[in-house]
Amino acid sequence: MYSPITSALSTENQKIAGDALQAVLVDPVDLSLIGKQAHWNVVGSQFRSIHLDLDELVTTARDFTDQVAERLTAIGVSPDGRAATVASDSGTKGFGSGWSKDDEVVASIVGNLAAVIARLRERIEVTADADPVTQDLLIGQTARLEQLHWMWQAQLA
Amino acid sequence: MYSPITSALSTENQKIAGDALQAVLVDPVDLSLIGKQAHWNVVGSQFRSIHLDLDELVTTARDFTDQVAERLTAIGVSPDGRAATVASDSGTKGFGSGWSKDDEVVASIVGNLAAVIARLRERIEVTADADPVTQDLLIGQTARLEQLHWMWQAQLA
Amino acid sequence: MYSPITSALSTENQKIAGDALQAVLVDPVDLSLIGKQAHWNVVGSQFRSIHLDLDELVTTARDFTDQVAERLTAIGVSPDGRAATVASDSGTKGFGSGWSKDDEVVASIVGNLAAVIARLRERIEVTADADPVTQDLLIGQTARLEQLHWMWQAQLA
Amino acid sequence: MYSPITSALSTENQKIAGDALQAVLVDPVDLSLIGKQAHWNVVGSQFRSIHLDLDELVTTARDFTDQVAERLTAIGVSPDGRAATVASDSGTKGFGSGWSKDDEVVASIVGNLAAVIARLRERIEVTADADPVTQDLLIGQTARLEQLHWMWQAQLA
Amino acid sequence: MYSPITSALSTENQKIAGDALQAVLVDPVDLSLIGKQAHWNVVGSQFRSIHLDLDELVTTARDFTDQVAERLTAIGVSPDGRAATVASDSGTKGFGSGWSKDDEVVASIVGNLAAVIARLRERIEVTADADPVTQDLLIGQTARLEQLHWMWQAQLA
Amino acid sequence: MYSPITSALSTENQKIAGDALQAVLVDPVDLSLIGKQAHWNVVGSQFRSIHLDLDELVTTARDFTDQVAERLTAIGVSPDGRAATVASDSGTKGFGSGWSKDDEVVASIVGNLAAVIARLRERIEVTADADPVTQDLLIGQTARLEQLHWMWQAQLA
Amino acid sequence: MYSPITSALSTENQKIAGDALQAVLVDPVDLSLIGKQAHWNVVGSQFRSIHLDLDELVTTARDFTDQVAERLTAIGVSPDGRAATVASDSGTKGFGSGWSKDDEVVASIVGNLAAVIARLRERIEVTADADPVTQDLLIGQTARLEQLHWMWQAQLA
Amino acid sequence: MYSPITSALSTENQKIAGDALQAVLVDPVDLSLIGKQAHWNVVGSQFRSIHLDLDELVTTARDFTDQVAERLTAIGVSPDGRAATVASDSGTKGFGSGWSKDDEVVASIVGNLAAVIARLRERIEVTADADPVTQDLLIGQTARLEQLHWMWQAQLA
Amino acid sequence: MYSPITSALSTENQKIAGDALQAVLVDPVDLSLIGKQAHWNVVGSQFRSIHLDLDELVTTARDFTDQVAERLTAIGVSPDGRAATVASDSGTKGFGSGWSKDDEVVASIVGNLAAVIARLRERIEVTADADPVTQDLLIGQTARLEQLHWMWQAQLA
Amino acid sequence: MYSPITSALSTENQKIAGDALQAVLVDPVDLSLIGKQAHWNVVGSQFRSIHLDLDELVTTARDFTDQVAERLTAIGVSPDGRAATVASDSGTKGFGSGWSKDDEVVASIVGNLAAVIARLRERIEVTADADPVTQDLLIGQTARLEQLHWMWQAQLA
Amino acid sequence: MYSPITSALSTENQKIAGDALQAVLVDPVDLSLIGKQAHWNVVGSQFRSIHLDLDELVTTARDFTDQVAERLTAIGVSPDGRAATVASDSGTKGFGSGWSKDDEVVASIVGNLAAVIARLRERIEVTADADPVTQDLLIGQTARLEQLHWMWQAQLA
Amino acid sequence: MYSPITSALSTENQKIAGDALQAVLVDPVDLSLIGKQAHWNVVGSQFRSIHLDLDELVTTARDFTDQVAERLTAIGVSPDGRAATVASDSGTKGFGSGWSKDDEVVASIVGNLAAVIARLRERIEVTADADPVTQDLLIGQTARLEQLHWMWQAQLA
Repeated sequence: MYSPITSALSTENQKIAGDALQAVLVDPVDLSLIGKQAHWNVVGSQFRSIHLDLDELVTTARDFTDQVAERLTAIGVSPDGRAATVASDSGTKGFGSGWSKDDEVVASIVGNLAAVIARLRERIEVTADADPVTQDLLIGQTARLEQLHWMWQAQLA
Repeated sequence: MYSPITSALSTENQKIAGDALQAVLVDPVDLSLIGKQAHWNVVGSQFRSIHLDLDELVTTARDFTDQVAERLTAIGVSPDGRAATVASDSGTKGFGSGWSKDDEVVASIVGNLAAVIARLRERIEVTADADPVTQDLLIGQTARLEQLHWMWQAQLA
Repeated sequence: MYSPITSALSTENQKIAGDALQAVLVDPVDLSLIGKQAHWNVVGSQFRSIHLDLDELVTTARDFTDQVAERLTAIGVSPDGRAATVASDSGTKGFGSGWSKDDEVVASIVGNLAAVIARLRERIEVTADADPVTQDLLIGQTARLEQLHWMWQAQLA
Repeated sequence: MYSPITSALSTENQKIAGDALQAVLVDPVDLSLIGKQAHWNVVGSQFRSIHLDLDELVTTARDFTDQVAERLTAIGVSPDGRAATVASDSGTKGFGSGWSKDDEVVASIVGNLAAVIARLRERIEVTADADPVTQDLLIGQTARLEQLHWMWQAQLA
Repeated sequence: MYSPITSALSTENQKIAGDALQAVLVDPVDLSLIGKQAHWNVVGSQFRSIHLDLDELVTTARDFTDQVAERLTAIGVSPDGRAATVASDSGTKGFGSGWSKDDEVVASIVGNLAAVIARLRERIEVTADADPVTQDLLIGQTARLEQLHWMWQAQLA
Repeated sequence: MYSPITSALSTENQKIAGDALQAVLVDPVDLSLIGKQAHWNVVGSQFRSIHLDLDELVTTARDFTDQVAERLTAIGVSPDGRAATVASDSGTKGFGSGWSKDDEVVASIVGNLAAVIARLRERIEVTADADPVTQDLLIGQTARLEQLHWMWQAQLA
Repeated sequence: MYSPITSALSTENQKIAGDALQAVLVDPVDLSLIGKQAHWNVVGSQFRSIHLDLDELVTTARDFTDQVAERLTAIGVSPDGRAATVASDSGTKGFGSGWSKDDEVVASIVGNLAAVIARLRERIEVTADADPVTQDLLIGQTARLEQLHWMWQAQLA
Repeated sequence: MYSPITSALSTENQKIAGDALQAVLVDPVDLSLIGKQAHWNVVGSQFRSIHLDLDELVTTARDFTDQVAERLTAIGVSPDGRAATVASDSGTKGFGSGWSKDDEVVASIVGNLAAVIARLRERIEVTADADPVTQDLLIGQTARLEQLHWMWQAQLA
Repeated sequence: MYSPITSALSTENQKIAGDALQAVLVDPVDLSLIGKQAHWNVVGSQFRSIHLDLDELVTTARDFTDQVAERLTAIGVSPDGRAATVASDSGTKGFGSGWSKDDEVVASIVGNLAAVIARLRERIEVTADADPVTQDLLIGQTARLEQLHWMWQAQLA
Repeated sequence: MYSPITSALSTENQKIAGDALQAVLVDPVDLSLIGKQAHWNVVGSQFRSIHLDLDELVTTARDFTDQVAERLTAIGVSPDGRAATVASDSGTKGFGSGWSKDDEVVASIVGNLAAVIARLRERIEVTADADPVTQDLLIGQTARLEQLHWMWQAQLA
Repeated sequence: MYSPITSALSTENQKIAGDALQAVLVDPVDLSLIGKQAHWNVVGSQFRSIHLDLDELVTTARDFTDQVAERLTAIGVSPDGRAATVASDSGTKGFGSGWSKDDEVVASIVGNLAAVIARLRERIEVTADADPVTQDLLIGQTARLEQLHWMWQAQLA
Repeated sequence: MYSPITSALSTENQKIAGDALQAVLVDPVDLSLIGKQAHWNVVGSQFRSIHLDLDELVTTARDFTDQVAERLTAIGVSPDGRAATVASDSGTKGFGSGWSKDDEVVASIVGNLAAVIARLRERIEVTADADPVTQDLLIGQTARLEQLHWMWQAQLA
């Protein structure tokens, strides 16, 4: 496919890295929408603490979205993060409708983080040879999401 | 419908304001995704300026999403801003796939803003009697979006 | 009554707006004292979160006091926010003496906010014709207090 | 008249709102020039306090100019704030030449503020039906100018 | 009286320090309400300067309220700073109703500060043996209030 | 003419420096109004960049106005920067009415800057002997305006 | 013992103050390590709130360590805050190994704070005559730790 | 061993990464205590410069402690950074008691940094296959410590 | 006289510039002490405004002291700003002992500023040929002091 | 070659990493000089945007220079970034003399970035085994430069 | 002596505290002048470090001057910090004329600090009964000066 | 030579000022490269202080480069600051290769500053008549460089 942006990668490596990146692009977009949905609908005695933590999660998810999308552009591949694409391709576990109790919210976020992390760990292996620059980005995002996973899971103990 | 959050509004007014707010909630969510999609895919000599302006649009759209959703919660109605809901209910004009020339991006944003403004103006009238607090919020958002509409349209002259 | 400050309002409208504003002036003063009393006396596992939230409530109440009082001066009416006036005229539900458990504090704040909101909503109607500038101020305060009412009530679910 | 900027308003409402806004555009421009003229020429024992307060007035006036002008552009009407237009159309009371004693300066500013406020109050009524977004802007400016009017007038007591 | 908070002080010293602190708690609460009342009602050529200085006084009074109340909690005694308690127990000289000329405001503030300082100096002696930590707090507040007393009194010369 | 402000300059040098400064006072006032007029009325693909640059120009012009006016007061001469004076005495080339295309705006600003610079260069020579302090101020303003002139003219190449 | 740093204190008073300070130096070092240990190992529904509060405790403990150690140097005595010294001389109650439930963490911190406060109160008496400057430092630290003790204990009610 | 925190790593890789991280956790804790000990006890003409540099070292060491401990929690292993553990397991070279001359301090810090770096380099190899996320963290810390090693060693030349 | 600092100036020009600079060094030192003396001793209804303005004067005077002294060092001449030198060589008019009424303070500051300005204007002429860099510094200081002279004198009108 | 700085690397690995780093040191130095040259000489309608973007490029290039040079020192190798070395060893494509049109500037920057990226990608492979810490630094720089390459190239579409 | 400022102290205690404070007022004034003199005249390899440290000393000395003088005013005594008073009453050891080697500067500052501390320690005893508020101020200043004394003396070891 | 940028200077004066500015442009570019080279290669006990001071020198040199180059553009002359031009035209004394002892670095910087200052002083004379705006820029740069020259030379005493 013609692209106005050229890349230092070979066509093959560009394909491998591009597929991996597009695959992990929709997850943080969806995670940011889930985080906001939970941010508004959470109720229960832990409301305040969770309400605030969810915004931290949303900020992280939004930053990661930008990082992945701009890595795609940097290797000459057009990213796709539109609502319909996210709704169809996301690898998260989603979030229920209506008001949601605080402990259910925590459990849902833990599950969604685990799903996103699993997808990232797969791509770390795939991109190791194709493009170490892309791999380095995915390693950095995994480190942060695993930290968040611990913090949310610690609340379930 | 049972809600853990009570409101000072009558049931009827709560229904009118709630329907209006949910209707205008999905638009800024979609606008923020469209803004990011354009932010990554724009090419052309105006790239830099548009790339940066789009982030300002995204920030505004995200703020408006939060304002509308938190007004819904304040009147005791659960908001819904999930990916699937946005994909099905959005009133925007959407954004095409792949790389996009700068002047096409500007035209697309102008069209999307006009569509969102039209939906807001309808709700300003609907909520005038039901809840002046909600109406005041919608007036404020319309003022800002009409300012942005001018700024984007000015680039087409 | 002679006043060194003149107003653009007619005498009649000045009376209507002035009475409405003085009536809603004592509430946020009392709310700030109640908020501080709760801030010091709350105990229980939610101590930290509630202790901090109460200071946010106090800050809001103090800002609203200033806004209402300075709107009174702007229309040429001397405001009265002294301790004795607050103690006799406040429309809040008050706060008990001694140490107070966290969930009792939350319930008390929810009740006090509901009482203050009800008084504001009455004045929004009263001032609509007399002085839209005053009405606009009361609408803005109601929006914020209804948001806080949701956040505090959400903790009771 | 052809305009490169389109508006959501009907032609009639655009005309009403546009005329109102252009009418109140020149006042804050002139107020900012008057404020600076007084800022430089004031003498007397209250020099410092008045010298500083005038800069606060100038900042407010400049902000209001921008708000009104950009609301004009947002509804598709070209604003006119040039020196000659201001000199001919301003609704202020003006300011004398040469050095000016502190109490004369205060009285002059009080008079100019009252004149500008009166013009704004008229436009609040005119724009209520034509464009609530414009009306909301004028209400906000009136609130602030009436506050300043009190503060300056209080110094005359 | 049962308290959920224990203290390192003996019961006797806890009683002495607790009585002293509760006695000096209501004064800064009242001083902050008096400061605001004066802030709104002052008129005269010194309006601006006094209007601003009063907010500095209010900030100081509010900080001192918090310091004293949180020292009470730290030694296991529940503080009481509610409107009715302040109205009945305050040791200030109070403030008249309605608009107030600038020099009268200054004289009133000087008198109120002197009254509060006198009460603090008594408690410094009382707490010397019972609790040097409490005494240190009262010494610090006295130093600041005596500085403010000078600054306000200097304006009367 | 009697002045409440004395100067270290001889009467003759005060006259020379005063005339030079009053002559260059009205230009930056007018430049700031022209800059704002262009800021609102510019249209075209370069809208954003020019819209923002014009505010930088306005800020510079306002600062220069203050510097020149306060140098006039420092040498005991009352400055005159009122709307009518500006409209009659300005040495700028002015700005047309209505919407204006981006390249026309740039050309107009370049022309206005050149006119103002020419007037400043004349005064640098005139004030060299009369008052080196005044000359130093004019040299500094010329340096900045010639820098801006380059930046605006560079866009025409 | 020879020291390169001289002091204004007599040898005897230097000995008394030096012994007191070294004795209370190891406690905040240990408290900061305990705080971090708890910061990492806490689990349970209060995780977030406690996790953050512990860092505030650690910051306080580190500041106090520096204050005490630099007071030692100021009176010419070499401070010792090395790991082995802390491990052997600390007066805290310590902290268990492995993951720890939130309410156990709170109880442990309350106990550790009480132990450190008791040691400080002893030294306040000892240093009163020997060095009022040192005593003033210990009074200040006690005030802050008793405040923290209340805040942590309030969570157990 | 049961852990409330789950990990995406296999049990074997969790063991390898966990052992490596716990091994390098105690070093920065000890380094921060050594840095502070030196910070207080250094004397000589280079006092100021070294006194300040040591605080930069301490800040780095504290940050690294947190990073390593939180990586341990993220992979489901409880970290141990208590005083006794540090005193027994640290891989640093330690620091002598009493006042210390500036050049001796520099030499000691260089030696301690070299020891810690050697331990980190070993773990970089060990964790390469087991967990690239952990390896990436250790590489980052090594880079910074080798930079500090150069800066301290440069002072010995 | 031997100096460890060499200069690009000829010995003759170094002597002219050095003498001029040392002569104007003591004035701002004395002005800063006078400013503080007045800052503490002023009484009267203008207390607050003058108390604050004097600190602005002191800040300016201290900055000028540093600028002049460091220009002396830059041309290889040792500056002398010690108390005895200031007491004997200052060109100010001094300030009386004891409490001082506000208008007397203003008059005294105006007189002192005029004296210092006169001394600076002499040195501007002297250094024109010897060292334009030194002259430029003196011109800059004169500009600022003449501005302050206007602001203080304006209060006497 | 004798070096006052020792390294944890073997002599062989030090040689490999040192050669790679010195080779990529001169490029960002040259890139920063080219960026400034273009910053001054660009003309055309895109002047402002490019003028500002070039400073962002220069800042990045300067940061990278420091990172590479300080990694060289950290492994005990003396870096060489002097003008003559840069002029002879740089791997960039250079920049022409005189004024330069905006689109030519963009094309030149795109070409220079591609050249520098190619050199970095080679070194990433070379240093993988010799020193993963050095490799990690080069990967990070490549990621950023490829992002800039996309942003500049997007303007050519 | 008549004073426009009244005090809560008895006449006798006012005399004791006032004499003590005036006695320790001139020292920090002189210390700030000595600090600046050294700041300008220091030469030697430690120039930079000492040059910067001296400004920290000057800042401290200036703050202390203000604190002591404003405590004098707070107890109704007019402070005297004029050049002639400082030159005659200072208790410092002074500073020589001309350029000064770095180690001589350090020794001189250590000696001056010791002299000032000795004078403060005497006044701490004198004011204990007369005014604990004044004593608390002197204790705080002594603590800081003894810290600085250590830091300067440490450089002599 | 054709230039897209016009100037208020006559062709002759443009030539004189342009030659002077291009001549002094390459020096600060080279000074910044020398400063960085020294920043990386300095060793010895004064390492830290010199390492930091050199970055301050580099920042100054970079600012001056921009000022001179943008003055060239402002008078319509294309500046040339490329690596090859700097390597051939610089008036500095250069800097040796490899590691460099601290005192040698200081001596080298002093020599380089003296060389650059001498070149600036020549241009101050040359531009006096041709363009006082350019001369003013060179005077300002000379003042700062002579200050730095003193500070570096003071370390050699």
